[in-house]
Amino acid sequence: MTYCVGLLLDEGMVMAADSRTNAGVDYISTYSKLHVLQPAPDRLFVLMVAGSLATTREVLDRIGRDLDQAINPRPSPFQQAPLVTLLNVNYLFEAATYIGQVSQAVQNEHGPALRQAGVSAEASFILGGQIAGQAHGLFLIYPQGNAIAATPETPYLQIGESKYGKPALDRIVHPGLSLADGARICLVSLVGTARSNLSVGPPFEVAICPRDQLAPSHLLKLPAGSPDLAALSRSWDESLSQAFFALPRFSWEPGNPQS
Amino acid sequence: MTYCVGLLLDEGMVMAADSRTNAGVDYISTYSKLHVLQPAPDRLFVLMVAGSLATTREVLDRIGRDLDQAINPRPSPFQQAPLVTLLNVNYLFEAATYIGQVSQAVQNEHGPALRQAGVSAEASFILGGQIAGQAHGLFLIYPQGNAIAATPETPYLQIGESKYGKPALDRIVHPGLSLADGARICLVSLVGTARSNLSVGPPFEVAICPRDQLAPSHLLKLPAGSPDLAALSRSWDESLSQAFFALPRFSWEPGNPQS
Repeated sequence: MTYCVGLLLDEGMVMAADSRTNAGVDYISTYSKLHVLQPAPDRLFVLMVAGSLATTREVLDRIGRDLDQAINPRPSPFQQAPLVTLLNVNYLFEAATYIGQVSQAVQNEHGPALRQAGVSAEASFILGGQIAGQAHGLFLIYPQGNAIAATPETPYLQIGESKYGKPALDRIVHPGLSLADGARICLVSLVGTARSNLSVGPPFEVAICPRDQLAPSHLLKLPAGSPDLAALSRSWDESLSQAFFALPRFSWEPGNPQS
Repeated sequence: MTYCVGLLLDEGMVMAADSRTNAGVDYISTYSKLHVLQPAPDRLFVLMVAGSLATTREVLDRIGRDLDQAINPRPSPFQQAPLVTLLNVNYLFEAATYIGQVSQAVQNEHGPALRQAGVSAEASFILGGQIAGQAHGLFLIYPQGNAIAATPETPYLQIGESKYGKPALDRIVHPGLSLADGARICLVSLVGTARSNLSVGPPFEVAICPRDQLAPSHLLKLPAGSPDLAALSRSWDESLSQAFFALPRFSWEPGNPQS
């Protein structure tokens, strides 16, 4: 499984992902699911992936091939229409549409054989990015290729094993959060998910992308034993334990002012 | 949907459930999912239910009919074998087996018609209880009728919409928790789930059953606006917000001792 979360904040974007993949409990691997694509100085794309590892791998390879073709045009027997790439899309939503189309093409190619084996070819994506002169944005691209966007009312998007880490986000996230606070709540959400579900695990990767900079200011990769991750987990655990024992007593308990 | 959680603690059991049911977003109702059954002074059963409301309703009605038949025997055209009831089971695990059999019988009766309509007849149960002279125990009865038990290593069991509320349990629950603390962490888990998933909601019901008392010491029913629930939510929210802002800074942030 996988867990990725992206925040659309006034100050920019935070995108965070775990790195565990599994095809059964006896086939657990580590793959990065957070990919930074900067095909030109006027545009930044950060793509997080969940679902079939073979599908997401081929989607990333096809996106790269399309970019390579745009820079070094060569006749290709696979090319049938004018080439859409991350270089020539004019809007961020067009990049989401393009990635959805690539995902659909890959799924259509391998879906029939996979369905016969009872396996899903589906994949989901979170695309964050900005094209110079336009607003920064965040899209969730469904397995069917369509997409929704983050908004001030819904400032975060999740893919993969999203339920365990949602209560922490629901309590804390709002568009006015600083980028560092956004990165912290994403890590809290990831750490809690990994604790409750073995199929989600470190290294945790975080991309912090300040608005209008068109490049990440920080790219973090926190492996299981890293001091930063341990300090965050310890602080959160201790505070939560204190929070728990500070909850109001029931009326029948000693120490309740009504008792 | 539904969310129920039961804790098996050294001091006894805590069982907690939400009360929301839904058959589509335009058909949301309130039903109690926590049922205390005390058929004789030597035995206590607390049964929580999730899944098809029609299945769980009929399971409870059949359990009641079997008890009534045991107390006031009448010839019944439906009775084919010696009657098992909550009165004559000799062990708590036999009560779990019996409830699993009743659940299977109800599902087998209605399953074919429901499957044609694309609806599931499945239901899950958490049974907590004690028979005099034996240990208290907690079982999760699967839709297939088999059951697992809580143990010191796995002191809590959940049914229904269980993922949102799991991280809080994973952090706090251990067998040495007091009953009141157990009730508090169950409420924290319920409140967080209800915030993240509209299909789970108050009133929240909690049964606190001290070991060897064979009766609940407290039965709580906390509706949405209740002062106790509001105080608990407010305390938890404020502490979590403080916990979040007390997390260690990143190395590049002002206020970090390394910066």
